Amino acid sequence: MSKEKPSIPKGTRDFGPAVVVKRNYIFGVIRRTFEKFGYLPLETPAMEQLSVLTGKYGDEGDQLIFKILNSGDFLSKTRPEDIAEGSKHLTRKISEKALRYDLTVPFARFVVMNRNEISFPFKRYQIQPVWRADRPQKGRYREFYQCDADVVGTNSLLCEAEIVQMINGVLTDLGLTDFTIKINHRGILAGIAEAIGENGREGDICVAIDKLDKIGKVGVRKELLERGITADAVNKLEPLYDLNGSNEEILNQLQVILGKTAEGQRGLSDLHEVWNYLQGLQSKALSAENPSGAPRLQLDVTLARGLSYYTGCIFEVKVNNVSMGSISGGGRYDNLTGMFGMPDVSGVGFSFGVDRIYDVLEELQLFPASNESGTQVLLVQFDKASEQYALPLLQQLRDAGISSELYPEAAKLKKQMSYADQKKIPYVVLIGSEEMAGGKLKLRNMQTGEQQDQSIEEIISKLK
Amino acid sequence: MSKEKPSIPKGTRDFGPAVVVKRNYIFGVIRRTFEKFGYLPLETPAMEQLSVLTGKYGDEGDQLIFKILNSGDFLSKTRPEDIAEGSKHLTRKISEKALRYDLTVPFARFVVMNRNEISFPFKRYQIQPVWRADRPQKGRYREFYQCDADVVGTNSLLCEAEIVQMINGVLTDLGLTDFTIKINHRGILAGIAEAIGENGREGDICVAIDKLDKIGKVGVRKELLERGITADAVNKLEPLYDLNGSNEEILNQLQVILGKTAEGQRGLSDLHEVWNYLQGLQSKALSAENPSGAPRLQLDVTLARGLSYYTGCIFEVKVNNVSMGSISGGGRYDNLTGMFGMPDVSGVGFSFGVDRIYDVLEELQLFPASNESGTQVLLVQFDKASEQYALPLLQQLRDAGISSELYPEAAKLKKQMSYADQKKIPYVVLIGSEEMAGGKLKLRNMQTGEQQDQSIEEIISKLK
Repeated sequence: MSKEKPSIPKGTRDFGPAVVVKRNYIFGVIRRTFEKFGYLPLETPAMEQLSVLTGKYGDEGDQLIFKILNSGDFLSKTRPEDIAEGSKHLTRKISEKALRYDLTVPFARFVVMNRNEISFPFKRYQIQPVWRADRPQKGRYREFYQCDADVVGTNSLLCEAEIVQMINGVLTDLGLTDFTIKINHRGILAGIAEAIGENGREGDICVAIDKLDKIGKVGVRKELLERGITADAVNKLEPLYDLNGSNEEILNQLQVILGKTAEGQRGLSDLHEVWNYLQGLQSKALSAENPSGAPRLQLDVTLARGLSYYTGCIFEVKVNNVSMGSISGGGRYDNLTGMFGMPDVSGVGFSFGVDRIYDVLEELQLFPASNESGTQVLLVQFDKASEQYALPLLQQLRDAGISSELYPEAAKLKKQMSYADQKKIPYVVLIGSEEMAGGKLKLRNMQTGEQQDQSIEEIISKLK
Repeated sequence: MSKEKPSIPKGTRDFGPAVVVKRNYIFGVIRRTFEKFGYLPLETPAMEQLSVLTGKYGDEGDQLIFKILNSGDFLSKTRPEDIAEGSKHLTRKISEKALRYDLTVPFARFVVMNRNEISFPFKRYQIQPVWRADRPQKGRYREFYQCDADVVGTNSLLCEAEIVQMINGVLTDLGLTDFTIKINHRGILAGIAEAIGENGREGDICVAIDKLDKIGKVGVRKELLERGITADAVNKLEPLYDLNGSNEEILNQLQVILGKTAEGQRGLSDLHEVWNYLQGLQSKALSAENPSGAPRLQLDVTLARGLSYYTGCIFEVKVNNVSMGSISGGGRYDNLTGMFGMPDVSGVGFSFGVDRIYDVLEELQLFPASNESGTQVLLVQFDKASEQYALPLLQQLRDAGISSELYPEAAKLKKQMSYADQKKIPYVVLIGSEEMAGGKLKLRNMQTGEQQDQSIEEIISKLK
C-alpha cells in the first residue's frame, strides 16, 4: 500500500459540498427549463467503443480521446510488428474502448441504434461529463460537464425559436440581466461568400471571421488573404462587420446585399420565420433590452461558429461586462447520423457551458444566499441527559421535512458552534438543564446571534 | 468514417428517457433523505491516479480496474524489457490513470487531501458511477452507480442509529413495506470465535457463515472444517444460526454465551446503545413489523459481510418475497484513511444498490404512475393558422410552469396523436378552425379519450 500523499489527475477536480450545491442549482434550472419545453433526459455510458469515436473529431480530436487499456493480458493479441510500428498503431491493438469526448456522437449513436423504437421528432437533453486529454489550463479541464439539448427528425424552425426561449429562460432564471443571444445562419455566410465573389469559400471565411473578437479586423484580413480570399473580396466583406441598427434594419440591408444568392435567400427566409415564431410566442428575448439599450437577441453576420456540421441557424450567447467567452451555443445540422450510415436526420441543438456559467454567477454574486439543501438546524448537546432529550425533537424536525442534525457527541460548546459555523447551518438549538426543565428551547440565529426561547412547535413552524 | 452499425461496450447501458426518469426518482428520494440527516454531496473525478487505486481492492480487484492509456507517444517512455516482462508490468509504464472502482477510496483520498479544511465530523454522500472490468452477466454491469453516505471523525453510535433511520426512511418513501434491516457487530463475531474456542479466527468464520444463505448449514460446516476450525467449535457454533425470539431475547441469550469475552461485551454494549438511540428517536424501524409479523430491524449473528475493514456494527438490507440479494449494506470502520498514511479516522457508512432497487420497484410496480417531469400537454396543429393561434397559448402554459409542447409541424393528426401516445403525454389540445372561432379549445384526456371544450385559463388551472 502506498503511503505517499495522494493526488488527483491534472485537469480534474473534486467538488466539495458547497460547490456541488451551487452546481446542482445551475443543473436544476437548466433541467427544469428543458423539461418545460418537452425535452427528456438521456444518459449514455462513459465508455464508448473506440471505433464509434474515432474519426469524428478530426485528427487533433482523435489524439485527445482518452483510450482505455484492454483488460487482462492485452499484449497477447499483439505481434512484435505492432509494437515496432509505434504508439498510434499499437493503440488500436491494445485498446477497444474510450471515454466519451462529447455528447453529440453518443447521441447520434443512440439514435441509430434505437431508430425503430424512437418516436420522432425526438427531443432529448443530456447532462453528463466528458473527457478530453487537452493540456489543462485556466478554465480548461480534462473532465467537464456538457449540457446538451437537441431535437432531431424535424425541419421546423419553431425549434430554433424555442432554443432562443430556453436560453433566455435559463439565464433569466439564474438572475442574469445583461446578456446577448447572437444568431446567424450558414446560408447568410454562404450568400455573403457568393456576393463578394468567393462562391463556396464560406468555410475559409468562417474560420477567419470567427476570430474577429480575438485578433481584430486587421488580423482577420491577414488570415483571409493567407487563405486565398482576394483583396477585392475582403474589401467587400469588411463593411459587413459593422452592419448596425435594429435586427429588422440589418435584415433589410442583407436583403439588398444577398437578395440574388440562393443561399442568402434561404438564410434570410429562415431568420424571418424564426422571428415570426418568436413574435407569436411573445418572446421576452425579442422584446428585452440590455442595460446598454441594445436588443438582447442580435443578428450578427460575423458569428460563424467553427463546427463544420452546422447547416442552418447558429447561436452563441455572451454575458456582457464579464471577461468570459460564450456560455452557450449551437445550431442546426442536416446530417447528424450520417457518420453511422443513417442519412437525412436533421436536427438542431445547443449546449450550456456550466463551468463558465458557474464562474459568471460567482463573479456577479448571483448564487442564492440560502443553502436550501444544507442542514437548517443543529441541536447542541451538553451531556447524556440533553442528548436523550434531543432525540425525539430531532425526529420531529425531520418528520416535518427540516434538514437537521444532533451533534453526535457532547463535545465542547465551542466545537459544536464552530461545526455549525463551518457548515453554514443557519440555526442552532441549545438544550441545557434550564431548557429541559422549562420545556422551552433556546433557538439561536447564527447570523445575527439573536437568541429566543421557543417550543419545538414554534421552531418547526418558523423553519418550515 | 466507419459506416458499420454502432454498438456500446459490453456491460454498459444507455438509459432512455423513461428509465432516466425512474432512476432519478430513486436518486431523488435517497438524496432528500441523506440531506435531511445533514449529509452533503461530494463529487470526485471519474479518473484517479492509478497509484491511488492499486493495492486497495486485493489482487483480484486490481485486475478489474479499468486503466487509461497514457496520451501521446506512450511507448517512448518504455524500454524493450518492459514489453518483454508482459502486460502486467507494462501497464504501469503506459498507464498512470484509472477509472474509479468504488466511492470509498476516492472519499478517503479526498479526506486526506483536504484534512485541514474539513470540519469533522464530516458527513458526505456521493452518488456517482463506478467502473469494473467484471465479466458482465445478468444484473452485473461494468458501469453502475453507487450511492454512499459516510460520516467520519466520530465514534458516536448515534450515527449507526441514524443509518437505520435513513434506510427505513428511503425504503418507506419508495413504497416498500416488507423488508428486513439486519444488524450485527464484528465484536459479536469475534466474541463467538473466542467463546467456541477459536479465538482470533473470526475472519475465517465470517467468510464461511457469510455463505449460509447460498450453501446452507452443511456447506458452511464443510468450509469451516476446511478452513481448520475444529469440529468441536463448529458444533458449538451451529446452534447460533438459529437463535430466535425478539431482538431483546437474542441479546439476552448472547449475553450468556459471550458475557465473558471482551470483544463480545464490546459488541453487545454497542448494540444496546444503538437500540437506546433508536428508542429515543421513536424509530419506526424499531416498532414496525413486516407482514409476516417479524420485526423490521433484526439482530442476525450470522450476518458477516465480507469486507475486512469493518470493525463495529454492520448492516444489510433485504426486501422480502422478491428474488434479489441485499439492496443496501454498510458498517463501521476504524481506519478509513490509513491506506494514505492518515491514521485513526473512524467512521461509519452505507450504500444503496440502485440497480437492484430499480428492479425491485419494477417487479412490485411501485414506480409512481404520473410522469411528473414529462410533457403534460401537447398542442396539436392543423395548419399555419392554428400554429399561429397556438403560439401564445404555448407560452401561457409554460409561464404557468406546465411542461408543454406544440407539435412542430402540421403533420397528420394520427401522427401527432401517436407522438403524444408514445411520449405518454396525458393531455392533448386540439386547435381546429371551430376552436379558433369559438375561443374554446378541445382538451382531450389521452387515457380516457374524454374531450372537453375549455378556455386556456381553465386548462391551466386543471393542469397546474
